[in-house]
Order: sequence, then C-alpha cells, then structure tokens
Amino acid sequence: MKLTNTLLLAGSMAALPALGFAQDAAAAPDINPYIFTTLLFLIGGFLVFWMAAGFAMLEAGLVRSKNVTMQLTKNIALFSIAAIMYWLVGFNLMYPGDGWTIPGLLGALFVPTSLEPVGLDAADAALDYASVGSDFFFQLMFCATTASIVSGTLAERIKLWPFLIFVAILTGIIYPIEASWQWGGGFLSEMGFSDFAGSTLVHAAGGFAALAGAFVLGPRIGKYKDGRTVPMPGSNLALATLGTFILWLGWFGFNGGSQLAMGTVGDVTDVSRIFANTNMAAAAGAVAALLLTQLLYKKPDLTMVLNGALAGLVSITAGPLDPTLFGALWIGAVGGVIVVFTVPMLDKMKIDDVVGAIPVHLVAGFWGTLVVPVYTDGTSFITQIIGFAAIGAFVFVVSLIVWIILKGIMGIRVSEEDEINGLDMAELGMEAYPEFSKG
Amino acid sequence: MKLTNTLLLAGSMAALPALGFAQDAAAAPDINPYIFTTLLFLIGGFLVFWMAAGFAMLEAGLVRSKNVTMQLTKNIALFSIAAIMYWLVGFNLMYPGDGWTIPGLLGALFVPTSLEPVGLDAADAALDYASVGSDFFFQLMFCATTASIVSGTLAERIKLWPFLIFVAILTGIIYPIEASWQWGGGFLSEMGFSDFAGSTLVHAAGGFAALAGAFVLGPRIGKYKDGRTVPMPGSNLALATLGTFILWLGWFGFNGGSQLAMGTVGDVTDVSRIFANTNMAAAAGAVAALLLTQLLYKKPDLTMVLNGALAGLVSITAGPLDPTLFGALWIGAVGGVIVVFTVPMLDKMKIDDVVGAIPVHLVAGFWGTLVVPVYTDGTSFITQIIGFAAIGAFVFVVSLIVWIILKGIMGIRVSEEDEINGLDMAELGMEAYPEFSKG
Amino acid sequence: MKLTNTLLLAGSMAALPALGFAQDAAAAPDINPYIFTTLLFLIGGFLVFWMAAGFAMLEAGLVRSKNVTMQLTKNIALFSIAAIMYWLVGFNLMYPGDGWTIPGLLGALFVPTSLEPVGLDAADAALDYASVGSDFFFQLMFCATTASIVSGTLAERIKLWPFLIFVAILTGIIYPIEASWQWGGGFLSEMGFSDFAGSTLVHAAGGFAALAGAFVLGPRIGKYKDGRTVPMPGSNLALATLGTFILWLGWFGFNGGSQLAMGTVGDVTDVSRIFANTNMAAAAGAVAALLLTQLLYKKPDLTMVLNGALAGLVSITAGPLDPTLFGALWIGAVGGVIVVFTVPMLDKMKIDDVVGAIPVHLVAGFWGTLVVPVYTDGTSFITQIIGFAAIGAFVFVVSLIVWIILKGIMGIRVSEEDEINGLDMAELGMEAYPEFSKG
Repeated sequence: MKLTNTLLLAGSMAALPALGFAQDAAAAPDINPYIFTTLLFLIGGFLVFWMAAGFAMLEAGLVRSKNVTMQLTKNIALFSIAAIMYWLVGFNLMYPGDGWTIPGLLGALFVPTSLEPVGLDAADAALDYASVGSDFFFQLMFCATTASIVSGTLAERIKLWPFLIFVAILTGIIYPIEASWQWGGGFLSEMGFSDFAGSTLVHAAGGFAALAGAFVLGPRIGKYKDGRTVPMPGSNLALATLGTFILWLGWFGFNGGSQLAMGTVGDVTDVSRIFANTNMAAAAGAVAALLLTQLLYKKPDLTMVLNGALAGLVSITAGPLDPTLFGALWIGAVGGVIVVFTVPMLDKMKIDDVVGAIPVHLVAGFWGTLVVPVYTDGTSFITQIIGFAAIGAFVFVVSLIVWIILKGIMGIRVSEEDEINGLDMAELGMEAYPEFSKG
Repeated sequence: MKLTNTLLLAGSMAALPALGFAQDAAAAPDINPYIFTTLLFLIGGFLVFWMAAGFAMLEAGLVRSKNVTMQLTKNIALFSIAAIMYWLVGFNLMYPGDGWTIPGLLGALFVPTSLEPVGLDAADAALDYASVGSDFFFQLMFCATTASIVSGTLAERIKLWPFLIFVAILTGIIYPIEASWQWGGGFLSEMGFSDFAGSTLVHAAGGFAALAGAFVLGPRIGKYKDGRTVPMPGSNLALATLGTFILWLGWFGFNGGSQLAMGTVGDVTDVSRIFANTNMAAAAGAVAALLLTQLLYKKPDLTMVLNGALAGLVSITAGPLDPTLFGALWIGAVGGVIVVFTVPMLDKMKIDDVVGAIPVHLVAGFWGTLVVPVYTDGTSFITQIIGFAAIGAFVFVVSLIVWIILKGIMGIRVSEEDEINGLDMAELGMEAYPEFSKG
Repeated sequence: MKLTNTLLLAGSMAALPALGFAQDAAAAPDINPYIFTTLLFLIGGFLVFWMAAGFAMLEAGLVRSKNVTMQLTKNIALFSIAAIMYWLVGFNLMYPGDGWTIPGLLGALFVPTSLEPVGLDAADAALDYASVGSDFFFQLMFCATTASIVSGTLAERIKLWPFLIFVAILTGIIYPIEASWQWGGGFLSEMGFSDFAGSTLVHAAGGFAALAGAFVLGPRIGKYKDGRTVPMPGSNLALATLGTFILWLGWFGFNGGSQLAMGTVGDVTDVSRIFANTNMAAAAGAVAALLLTQLLYKKPDLTMVLNGALAGLVSITAGPLDPTLFGALWIGAVGGVIVVFTVPMLDKMKIDDVVGAIPVHLVAGFWGTLVVPVYTDGTSFITQIIGFAAIGAFVFVVSLIVWIILKGIMGIRVSEEDEINGLDMAELGMEAYPEFSKG
C-alpha cells in the first residue's frame, strides 16, 4: 500500500488550488489532510525510531555480560550510520529522482537528500500530500530497522568496524535498492507483489543479510559441541523484555504509519484497524509460544515468548490492514509457532543466531508475506513467493559477497582469546557491569 | 465522562451527510472531528499500552532476583491474554451489543468482536464520532491494565498457570461486567456515579482482585515472623524507577484519552487540562511521600516515592478534568500520604502485597473516587461511595470465588521448596541475571 | 522562534469569530489550527516529560552502584519539585502576567498559575492560538529539564536535601527569570538573540548551575590523585544507553514542539524539518565521537558515543529549523568532537562532572548558540555571544551564591565516610541492587 497506492490516493483527492492561506471559508483549500498525514509520518517516525532502542535492549539482554558494552555500541552506531547513509545515498536510490537511474531497478545514485532545506519545496507546494521532510524522517527509520536486525544474529564474535562498514553498505545501497523495487515503484510493485509495511522488504531483508553474515562468520566458540547445542543464556532478561515491549510499541508506528495517509475518514479508520490487528498478532504470537513451550518442554520459555510476540508482529506486517481481528490472531499465532520450531532447527544446522533474529524476521517474514492473499484481494501466492525470493536472493547474495570481501580485507572475527574474554574488554576496554561479579 | 457523555457529545454535533469525500468546500461535511478523536484514541491507546511495560519493569524491579524471569513472563503473558479475551468476550460484554443482554447489568456474551474487519462499517459510516477500531484499541488497554495490577501483589509465590487462568476470567468477564455498569451505560452511570478514567473501575477493581488473591494465597514464607515484618528488598530499583516513569508517561494517555473526544476546541482544551492535572497529581504524590518518609523514618524511601507518584496518579484518575492545578496538587498529595500509611498497615494485617499495589490502586483509588464531588458538579459523596462499594464487592467476591476454585482444582501456590529456591529455576528453569552472583 | 514569533504567527491568522460550533460549512470558523497546535504541545510535552526518565537512566547507569538509589531518588524528586515550583512561581515569572513586574527583566512574582481551572478562559476564547493548559504543560517540561542537567554533574557526593532546595530555587526562580529574557519577550529577544529551543536557555543554563555547584562542592574523594585522573566507571552501561535513546526520542518533542504551532502547512512542514535535522545532528555527534575515540585512543568509547549523540542534540537545539540536513550533520558532528576534547579538559581543571553534563550541555550549548547565524537570517555572532554570556553570567553567579549559602547553612556534602560507603546506605538505607555482589 506504500508509494503506489499513495499516488493513487493523492490522485483521488481533488486537485487543490495553489498556496493560499486566507481563511475565506468557502474558497479555502483544505490543508488539513496535508497536516494529518505529515503528523502521521512524524508520530509513526518517532515510534519506529524508538525501535532502535528496543533492539539495543533486546540484544544487550540476550548476550552474555562480557559482550554487552559492544552490543550497545553496535546498536547506537548502526542507527547513526544508517541515518547518515540513507541521507547521503539511500533515499534517492530508493525513490527515483533526477539522477542517473535504471527505471524499475535502480534509483538515482549519490545525490545527498535535500542539501536544500527539507521542506516547502516543489513537492510540498502542491499541498496534496505531506511534507517531504516527514516522509524522509519516516522512511529513514525503516532503513535503520533493517540494520538493527543484523547486529543481533552476529553478536558476541564479530569485530566492530567490519560490522559497521557492512551496515553502511546495507543502509546506503542494499536496502534502498531492494526496497525501491516495491516502494519506489519498481518491478515488484508492477508485478502485484504486496508487502504493506515490510515483512519482506525490511524484516526478511535484514534476516537474509544476517544469515549471510552468520555463514561467513561461523558459530561462537563452544556453541556446538559433540553434536549438542550448548545453551549460552542471556545476561539480563529484564532488559530483553523491555526491548520487546519497546519494539511492540514502535510497531504501531511501523505498521500504522505505513498507511501513508491520515487525512480522510477512510485512512484514519484504516490506521486504527492496523493498530488493532498489529496488537492482536503480537499477543497471539506470545500466547502461542507460551503454550507451545509449555507443551513441548513442560516449562514456558520467556525468550521464546518474547520472540513469539516479535514473530507475530513480523507476520502481520506484510498485510496488517485487511485481515479481521481473528485473521490477525491466527496469522500472529503461526508466527509464534514458527519461532519455537525454527530456533532449534537453526541450531541443528549450526547456524548460530544469538538472539533468534533469523526465525523472527526472516522465517516469520516469509510466512507473513506468503499469507497476504488470504485476506487481500488482487494478490497471489505465486507473486508473493516470487517477490520474497527476488529480494531474498538479491540481499543474500550481495551480502555474502560483501561479507566475504570484508573477511578477506580486514577479517571480520575477533581472535579466539578475545572472544573467550569477551568483546567488551578486548575491543573496547570497558565493561557494561563492572561491579557485578560473575557467577 | 465516558460513553454516556460521548453519546451526548456526538448528539450535539450536527448530523453529517452520508459519505462524501469530494473536496467541494462549501458542501463538504467536516470530517476533522472524526479524525481528531480517532487520533486521540490511537495516541492514548499506545500510551496506555506502554503502561504494560511500566508494570513489568516496576514489578521486575521490586521482586527478588530469583523471581524476575517469572514476573516478566507473567506480565507479557497477561497483556497478551487480555488482548485476546477482551476481543473474544470482553468488548461486547462491556458495551451493549446485539446479543443476549440484561440491560444495565450484563452485555452481550461470547460474540467475538469484529470478525468482520474493524473499520468502515455501519458504526463508522455515520462519521459523527470516531473509528470503532480505535475505540476497541483504546478500551482494550484499560482492560489489560486491570490485570497488570494483580500480578504485582501476588508475586514471588503464585504459580504461573492458575494466575493466567485468573487473568483470562478477569479480563474476559469480571472487568467488562463491572465496567459496563458505568462506561457501558449501566446502572451506576444512571445513578450519577462519576469515574472519569477509572480510579474505581480499573485501579480499585484490579486492587480488589489482587486483595482476594492475597487472602487465598497467603503471605510469602518468612515475610511475617515473630510479629515482625521482614523486609524483602527489590532486586533492581533502577528498573522500578523506570517502570514508574513509564507508567507516569502512559497515564497521560490513560486520563487524557478518557476525554473520548478531541475534535472541538472545548475537548482539546479539556484534554490539555487533564494532562496538566495528571502531571501535578503525580508530582505532588511523590513529594508528599518523600517529605513524609523523611519525617517519619529520617530517611527518604525511594520505593515509597515511586508508589507515592503512582498513588497521586490513581487519585486524580476519577476526576482529572475539573480540579484546578491546586486541586490536583492536594488530591495527589493525599494519595502519596495514603501510600506511606497504608503499606505498613497491610503488613500489620499480614496481607503480603509485594509491590504495594493495594495501597496504590485500591486505597488511593477509593480516595480519588470519593473526592470527585469537591470539584465536579452533579456528583455526590454518597453515590461515589455506593459505586465504589458495588464494584468493590462484586470484583472481590467473584475473584475470591475464582481463586478458591482454582486453589481447589489445581493449587495456586508453588511448593515451599520452589518458593525458597525462587520461581525462576523451579517453574521456568531460566534465571533473569544468570551471571550476577547473589550477595 | 518561541513566544515572539508565535505572537506574530497568531497575528497573521485571520481573526476568528467568537465561539460557534455549528457545522454550517461556509460560515464556520476554522478551529483546526487551535486543535493542531494544542496537540503539538501535548505530544511535544509528553515527549519532553520522557526525557526526565532519560536523565534518570543515564545518570543511574553512569554512577557507581553504591550511589544508584540516591541518583534515582534525586531524579524523580527534582522533576516533581520542578512541576510544583513552576506552577507556584515559575510560569508567571517567565511570562509577563498581571502582577508586579520589571518589563523585560522580571515577570510577575508568586501568583500561582491557574488556581482557576486551566482551560477555556479569556486567553482561549479568542481561539486564535492554543490551549493555555497545553502551553503550561509543555513549558513546564523545559523547566524540569534544566534541573535534570544539574543532578548528573554533582552526583555521588552531594546531600539530598540541599540539592533539592537548589532545584526548587532553580526551577522556581533562576530558570524562569533568564528564560523570560528571551521567551517571555524580554531584552534578549528584543536584541535579536536567537535560541529556538534552548541550547542556551535550557542546556547551557543547566550546565552553568551545575558548574557553580561543582566548584563549591569539589571533586569526589580519590578522583584526582597525584596529578592523575582516576577512572570511576559507571555501574550499568545498558541503563546509560537506554537513557540516551530516551533523551534522543524526547528531543523530537523538545525541538519539534518549539515550533509552537502546527496548524498551517508551513508550520507542520517546519516541524518535520526540525525532526529530520534533530535526528541527523544526534547521529553525526555519535559518529564523530566514535571515530574520534577510535583515532585518539585506538578503542571506541561507548560513554563518549552516548555523550556525543547528546552533544549533537544540544548543538542543533538553538537552530534546528534553518540548517540543511548537511548543516545539521556538521553542526552535530562538531558537538561530538567537543565532548571528546572537553571531558578530559575538565578533568585537568579538576572539575569533577560525573556524567559529562558540562561538556554536553554547557560547551555544546555554546557551540549550538554561536553557530546559529550561519543558517538563520537576521542573527549575528556578536548578539549570540552576548546572549549566551548574559544568561551564563546570571545563572552562574546566582547559582554560586545559592550554593555557597546552602553550604554555609546546612552543608552540601556528605561526610567522607558516607561518600566512601556510598550515599545509598548512608543517606537512604536502601541499595539499588542488593543482591548483586560487588566485584
């Protein structure tokens, strides 16, 4: 429902006369839809910003205490780098601009966004949509989210700088290109692929980038031993739970803001429906994981419940508008089930994903994308699979190449000694909890 | 001021013509009130959602570290269950629908809300109020809050599953029935009972459910010994403080959103007044507890200050609109004083309330309900007491019955050994802070 | 752009007819700007409220565990006291009212704000701006922020009560007087001084009050020994990072809300531009500190990165509207550089600033104020320096006097023994993490 629908929407509004602020009621253009939609982007944007804090807390809580400072550093750095790269390259690459482009495949390169003040420029003067600045602010947060997903999977063993270089490439180039295929009006949107708020474009893409990294990087020392998976429990489940609640809150902005319009009765009603469905899917994912871990292991597993809620959220993200509340419930619940089964499966394949980001974002992202046609007219399972495969293949292959190059040039993994001692002291010389002695 | 006033409000707006989106300025219906009020529900709703995280952090910070994982699990699970139960049963039970009802006492049973997409259905088409989806989203959060209150009191000794079964009954049946008496247009609203945002309907109700549970469950082992109360300090006061700040923030949505309208100058001005009063009451409650603990114990007590702020919030919740800022100050301050005196009183009665939820939500909830007539015309102390007593008696008795049944069927308390070792290892097999050795 | 511009803005709107809610489209006054701007204050206000939690977490994370309960107590108490003092004295002192005033220098004293209900009074009836209640709510949060800055610098050695007395004077008198010089239409605003959201009025002012306190209080025992600075690492970097993210989020309200209007296309577009620039400056500050600490120390320093982001935010606060995104980038980046160089400089001067508040808020506040004329027409470097100097001198001198008087009357520093044992046990008798043994 992103850009393309937006354009339709904008088109369906009556053309408004040029700028005129006079309060002559009969003749005044209706500026309120512009204000409402801009406000939606601002509120949605700050909620999605907040997800960066959620990922930071979730990951800091799920790594061992010797790697917490590093995980926090990676999270605040990756968001900051994403903010700069998306301005420098990404935004124009994602939305076709004035530069050199391959229509439908590649946007304009290396035109930093808005060296002119973001604001009342040509695009705004039409008054028929929303502020470009608010749109940039909102879209930037999605780009940053993609990078947040990667840091969790690769935690506890990847070096800081190669990771951040990868983030720069992911947020400046890889994400904007694949996202442009759908939200920039590219070939996937023309094919009829449907991904409302980014189950594939954001979440699965982040998951594929993480998966490629996990292959090149290998598992943590001692994780897989004599055919067994050795548990390495997170150091602070209160933080992990806080992070999950933050992500859940931010997701209202993520999905609700993706309506991309709030200036009509229909749009604001749709935003409401998205809020209700998003919440239901998260709740159902959590409950499904709770029940399932009770059944399977006789003890509920909090980290599974947290990831179940997140998987529910990812699952509803490709189509949060059209399902009924009952639809959101079962779609989200399946997401929770997926997590419980996929986490040990990855371990069997010796893919070491520290926080469970691949089950949550990639696998549940696939599920959410696949299920769209059940409730959304004009979509097909085949097209959904093709779209997912196209983006998955592109992101995975390019990421793999980048990871391999980074490994060749500078190495991406810390030394064995540093890994055992923890990245905090080895790479940063600073402990997160220097006074709490280790048990 | 809830539903009934809302209906009046809606009635006082000019009837709007049927759906017409044409931008013909002279004839266009004014859709902005609909959008503004829907937006109020969405913003208010996500702020109240955030309170679920606040309760989780507050409670996780106030229990001992051996029970933190369990407290976190309960909090995310109870919210998720509330979200499902309120959809499955509660919403229709609370607001009279098409099903079998007892007018003024009981709504429609077991009609899951909105198997049809929430949205532009009959209720919306009138365009004279707000989106049903946004209203559902907002009201759901109040239902979940009621359950959050219970988990704190019963912490550190109740089994997970009986607690969650109680939550399902509380959020699906008990809360919706008593809330319908006032907000569903039932007999209390006809009597002239006044509870703007739920000092009684949400907070005291949660407190009564918790109190009934505390009676049936009994105090923690070792809490009351030889006539003395043994302090069992919380494991993480930083988390508890964070939780309090989160709740304070969420309360702006709780009270402000309960204006239930934002589309006129009068309504948005009222919402502003509510924000200012809510903040003042919290501040006054915190300062009162700070000064009083200094005077009484010569040392300020942070947990009392936190609960003082929360008690100030609960106290203003029954009538956050009408008082002056000075009124909000003294009403909130009395709330803070109540906490400081009630917490040790409960201990004398050997009612073990781990986080102080009964003083904060039940006792300050009574105070807030009682004091409404001082500033709100057309209300009476007698009616306020009757309303509080009716809801209190109903919730307490039904909860007591449910707890006793649960105790009989499956037992609600962990074994002595499990309680001493902590619920985290005994029931979940997962520590919250596995690396921080115990002092 | 604060009050003065607002008045201009309000003046430029067409005068609206008196209250009339009839939906007669042709004749209806446009009430939407009033609602939008009130909503901006409410959203902006709750976001800035949230910054109080951010400061609490940042400071609790950066002090040693033996002082965490105290730091939390100070933070919730200072916010509460600020809320009361700003109502009792501050708001009327800051904005010229009906009382005894010195025009341009001093507002009305000791007229508690709005003993009458905040709301539909004379100021509102004009319908040409926004609700007084929402404005009070928003401005109060800025006053509280000023006090939050002080608590960090003076941590780990100052007594609770003298600190809180200082807070009462700062928020009731010192801040409102200096802020009135600019935002209350005083002599600085007439001179053409420009401080959009408070780099000087809020942040540097808080920094000067902290600096005065640090002089009178002296450094912590053992901090400077034999010409060396002894590192005293913070006890919980996860909390410190959370605090930084909270502050970053709150800052969208801080800067965006300071547009003080959202009811026109131009205003909401400006708010969007401010959001985008604020985010960019924070990101650039973080990246600058990351790169610089890598270059200087060969190891990135997380606390510097966090403070770098905050310094970026402070730097853009004096002029978040006019710069391009590139402008926000370099202004914020310089803020990050300032932090990295100023923190050790202060240590050389034996000014012990526990959390780095002086570099972040005072020094970067100066930078942000100074750089305004690069992008904002009609401002001059000289005037910016004069304004900064006037406010700095006033706040520093008055604060110094207050600190010296407090020291004389009651002593402001805990005993040597109490400082070594930690303020938590000595002054409060309550540990923040009683079960985590000290390493």
